[in-house]
Amino acid sequence: MIKVGIVGGTGYTGVELLRLLATHPQVELEVITSRSEEGVAVADMFPNLRGHVDLCFTVPDPQRLAQCDVVFFATPNGIAMTQVPELLEAGVKIIDLAADFRIKDLSVWEQWYGMSHACPALVAEAVYGLPEINREAIRSARLVANPGCYPTAVTLGYLPLLEAGLIDPAHLIADAKSGASGAGRGANVATLLSEVDSSFKAYGASGHRHLPEISEKLGLLASTDVGLTFVPHLVPMIRGIHATLYGRLRGDAGDLQALFESRYADEGFVDVLPAGSHPETRTVRGGNMCRIAVHRPQGGDTVVVLSVIDNLVKGAAGQAVQNMNIMCGLPEKQGLDLIAVLP
Amino acid sequence: MIKVGIVGGTGYTGVELLRLLATHPQVELEVITSRSEEGVAVADMFPNLRGHVDLCFTVPDPQRLAQCDVVFFATPNGIAMTQVPELLEAGVKIIDLAADFRIKDLSVWEQWYGMSHACPALVAEAVYGLPEINREAIRSARLVANPGCYPTAVTLGYLPLLEAGLIDPAHLIADAKSGASGAGRGANVATLLSEVDSSFKAYGASGHRHLPEISEKLGLLASTDVGLTFVPHLVPMIRGIHATLYGRLRGDAGDLQALFESRYADEGFVDVLPAGSHPETRTVRGGNMCRIAVHRPQGGDTVVVLSVIDNLVKGAAGQAVQNMNIMCGLPEKQGLDLIAVLP
Amino acid sequence: MIKVGIVGGTGYTGVELLRLLATHPQVELEVITSRSEEGVAVADMFPNLRGHVDLCFTVPDPQRLAQCDVVFFATPNGIAMTQVPELLEAGVKIIDLAADFRIKDLSVWEQWYGMSHACPALVAEAVYGLPEINREAIRSARLVANPGCYPTAVTLGYLPLLEAGLIDPAHLIADAKSGASGAGRGANVATLLSEVDSSFKAYGASGHRHLPEISEKLGLLASTDVGLTFVPHLVPMIRGIHATLYGRLRGDAGDLQALFESRYADEGFVDVLPAGSHPETRTVRGGNMCRIAVHRPQGGDTVVVLSVIDNLVKGAAGQAVQNMNIMCGLPEKQGLDLIAVLP
Amino acid sequence: MIKVGIVGGTGYTGVELLRLLATHPQVELEVITSRSEEGVAVADMFPNLRGHVDLCFTVPDPQRLAQCDVVFFATPNGIAMTQVPELLEAGVKIIDLAADFRIKDLSVWEQWYGMSHACPALVAEAVYGLPEINREAIRSARLVANPGCYPTAVTLGYLPLLEAGLIDPAHLIADAKSGASGAGRGANVATLLSEVDSSFKAYGASGHRHLPEISEKLGLLASTDVGLTFVPHLVPMIRGIHATLYGRLRGDAGDLQALFESRYADEGFVDVLPAGSHPETRTVRGGNMCRIAVHRPQGGDTVVVLSVIDNLVKGAAGQAVQNMNIMCGLPEKQGLDLIAVLP
Repeated sequence: MIKVGIVGGTGYTGVELLRLLATHPQVELEVITSRSEEGVAVADMFPNLRGHVDLCFTVPDPQRLAQCDVVFFATPNGIAMTQVPELLEAGVKIIDLAADFRIKDLSVWEQWYGMSHACPALVAEAVYGLPEINREAIRSARLVANPGCYPTAVTLGYLPLLEAGLIDPAHLIADAKSGASGAGRGANVATLLSEVDSSFKAYGASGHRHLPEISEKLGLLASTDVGLTFVPHLVPMIRGIHATLYGRLRGDAGDLQALFESRYADEGFVDVLPAGSHPETRTVRGGNMCRIAVHRPQGGDTVVVLSVIDNLVKGAAGQAVQNMNIMCGLPEKQGLDLIAVLP
Repeated sequence: MIKVGIVGGTGYTGVELLRLLATHPQVELEVITSRSEEGVAVADMFPNLRGHVDLCFTVPDPQRLAQCDVVFFATPNGIAMTQVPELLEAGVKIIDLAADFRIKDLSVWEQWYGMSHACPALVAEAVYGLPEINREAIRSARLVANPGCYPTAVTLGYLPLLEAGLIDPAHLIADAKSGASGAGRGANVATLLSEVDSSFKAYGASGHRHLPEISEKLGLLASTDVGLTFVPHLVPMIRGIHATLYGRLRGDAGDLQALFESRYADEGFVDVLPAGSHPETRTVRGGNMCRIAVHRPQGGDTVVVLSVIDNLVKGAAGQAVQNMNIMCGLPEKQGLDLIAVLP
Repeated sequence: MIKVGIVGGTGYTGVELLRLLATHPQVELEVITSRSEEGVAVADMFPNLRGHVDLCFTVPDPQRLAQCDVVFFATPNGIAMTQVPELLEAGVKIIDLAADFRIKDLSVWEQWYGMSHACPALVAEAVYGLPEINREAIRSARLVANPGCYPTAVTLGYLPLLEAGLIDPAHLIADAKSGASGAGRGANVATLLSEVDSSFKAYGASGHRHLPEISEKLGLLASTDVGLTFVPHLVPMIRGIHATLYGRLRGDAGDLQALFESRYADEGFVDVLPAGSHPETRTVRGGNMCRIAVHRPQGGDTVVVLSVIDNLVKGAAGQAVQNMNIMCGLPEKQGLDLIAVLP
Repeated sequence: MIKVGIVGGTGYTGVELLRLLATHPQVELEVITSRSEEGVAVADMFPNLRGHVDLCFTVPDPQRLAQCDVVFFATPNGIAMTQVPELLEAGVKIIDLAADFRIKDLSVWEQWYGMSHACPALVAEAVYGLPEINREAIRSARLVANPGCYPTAVTLGYLPLLEAGLIDPAHLIADAKSGASGAGRGANVATLLSEVDSSFKAYGASGHRHLPEISEKLGLLASTDVGLTFVPHLVPMIRGIHATLYGRLRGDAGDLQALFESRYADEGFVDVLPAGSHPETRTVRGGNMCRIAVHRPQGGDTVVVLSVIDNLVKGAAGQAVQNMNIMCGLPEKQGLDLIAVLP
């Protein structure tokens, strides 16, 4: 059994980690921390966990965390980087669901996140936890930077095209849509039901923190800098990301459907839909799957990729568990072979 | 392994049965029928099942169904009663999710459902599949009438009070609220998103088909006829039932919280919340749990019970699988130990 | 033209007042105050008002408010009572949308609102602004206490029955449902979209601040104390209240439909639907109407009244404008003859 | 007073026309037709109209329609073209809200709509009813083709850029999102609440009927053929369209904000938001406004335009009334100076 700790478990990625880990056959939940909710039973805050999780939130205690095999950080940005070094020292494997270790270019990171990094060396060491591109490195990693939700959906959608060099990397357009849970569980007027429901809007059109993360990762796939226009939107729903990706084809593109099917043939959590399909976010609700469809409207030179995930699962907690499985030598799908809840 | 067939699998209870049965460790899905969708892959209609269910819909074939150990009917009312006799004859265990065998009083049934019953003798034999009151009878039943969604939520809420004779059975008021999936997957203007979303209404205030079903079952608990006012409402959401139940206390009621906790102490799918709680339907979304809270406002003589279920799980497919487990001698929670998806 | 001021205009009742007053032919908007948003253009905060309202929020200035003919308080409870005396002194008519002057029984008010009242004499003077029962008193009032949203829907629903003495006043049950805008525009985890959407729950089952307000007003209608069980619920939508009201009939009730139609025949903002109807909240969205239907299920001794309003209009800002019209001698429907937005 | 008839008033554009026309000070509603609902009171079908519209649906009667000054067709595609010639003959002005007269290129129309056109000459005569580009022609038109909802949002967004020749017309990308009311009020599984709510998807990625309409109109603005990739999406809400438009800038683009503000300075129904804004569909809900923001992310060569309308108002019924006002010499904003309902 793998002893697991969670730092910062009161947000939506926290409760989702608990949902997944509580039924994982190889996991023993040891500790979940929260300064503000010390002593509160997790299941009192999230009654869906009644009967499944009997832990209480505790104040973070480095010694207790050091006895875990794996510790997940589900904290705000900037917390993990102050606590991770000590835990790594103690031999704990770390999966950070925040952004502290996602971007290799420190100056870019510091510009977008507005702080100095506490442990630059670990940024260099950290493995970006997108198994579909980094599985082998994850297997031996001590520290995994779990990708952002938008970056997961966008990167998996562009991946086959960029790897194959089929589209112009200088002019990528990612029009992305997310449910409100992506904004977290903080008290905030902007995400009240009365503000978000029955309405639709873009946000961060001039710049969003996931832009540099995506650009860096797409650049690695394309082996060159990419030019990316990324416009996120807020959908009046709780869960789900839908990325609509546009690229300009270069020369003869060949059979795009076959390209996608072939690239993801061995991936357990990427599902290429039949030609002509339109993935719906509800088909991945609660599950760890990314479903993708590829279109070439009117046979022109623009390719359109539709990519959906559950932002809290494949876009956060599920991918984190997938990374844990890989890091710990478990079957990659263990505890994650979930069927999405539809309708 | 238990060989399972599903008759009529294109509705919401059908896809939910498939979600539950596909991961049930003791079940082998043999056949799923639909006249209208013959030949269509189930996973093409419900893409959340891709990779989990590879069956295609087939035209109902009595011989093939007869080779199953258990057959679920997820058909419109009036279908099961024409096909069940032959399957029982062949030794198949039957669980009917429709209303054909729920009401013992045939004249009442025929009045509310507007048809003659095809096999009255089987109505007498059928066991009403609410395990919390009929577990032993279900264990040896050939034919189980799976309860309606409203009846499940209402009956479990009133049960401890009526069994203990604490409330006046002549003046019960059940104010119930359901998500739109309870109305099914048929093409219907009244359940379009544009008709239902961002609005709330009662319906059937003068009479709803679940009224006689509930009255009959509550009458058994109370050992007398009950007088029930039942007003269902439509909530702008997909899943969930919330029943708010009112009763007039007779004499000294004692500790109602203790009564409920004691009555349900051994029930794996009924969760009595701590005193002062308000169950939310999202805490049972996708799970087979019924969560209940009991209140006595201002210490007066009116008791208020709040009871929530997922109408497609404990109110339909989940309870059906629970009944299957009991009928087949399996652990009652097998395949059903699901954590609700929250948020 | 009537010069109007609004104190505390950054909440949902504030923006709704602005929507209604901006197109009212006899109103000149003079001032809108907010300490926190001083200097911000109202239309920057609420872009639906662009081109219609060019005011900026200003710090409350008693002298400027004193020059208004009418001042609306759209403030949290406990603010109006500290500022109203000075404005009344200056000859300003006051309409308070908060609870400061709604309850005549001061000890009850102080118990439920947890503060001492700053001007008890004005509580005695204030007129409860439900025109359907107090129109003449409102006409000559200096200070109107605008009713709460739940009290409006519940009182209008019970009114004909209690006035006629047809139901037992000792055992009233009001099962009420509200959209999330009733909880206001404050930053609050409990009303985030991710907490409220796709779910349904009761709250305050053991006691809600609108309970004593409703009880007091129903008591006046019944000419005796009433016993009321009031259970509010939260609906995953923005606007709308639906009250489902239950009463036990005493003796021969006669033609309830005719009773309701007759009682409200001359009321411009109460619409009694045809027998057998079920009002939907969307039929009053954005409008000042209360729509009511009355049912007597199975001809029994329980009457069920269904009453819907838009909580921000007839339940708050619209009723406030209706009161202003009455107080100022304008046609009662002026500026309020709005058709609900459906779908 | 202008005598108005509506052909086909049982859909969402029909009820919206009624909402707008019922309070229009210069309009007398004469007749509304529906074969299926003959004899039904309009206000029984749409109770928001109770007290405002007392018409009943009648079977279409050419003679009665011929006595109107203006007739709106809110019919399925292919109906208006069979009835319009006779009414024009009788001197009636026609506004068709369907697609019969929107596309000048008949072969394109016939290909996308799958039928032969009944009156090609009238297609040539019809004026495309987007006042912002065709106001003068509309003024003297007998027959106006009211634009589609997506075409309105997309065309108004691209208009300043294409007129000024600032973007490459060969590679336009319009990523558009619509609420479910755009799909109409027909009984349809695909738009049930249980299918659409809490989910997001693209549809028609390989071709949607609004594509040729948009392409033709953008081509006129650009004075050349355009290459357009148009991907519509379905948002889990009732009303609203949000178009996110991408274009590649050619050379020095200058001050885009000033360009948009200047182009729309005199337009009463197009509102250019301040730089850096993100329009929300709720800010136009129920109103006839189009709100637009223009972004140039990271100062690059890609321009992003965000354009929102209420699909049933500026995208259908409101624009139709705007056209009526222009055709009849009324003030363009008469009856349309509505403030959006927010929240």
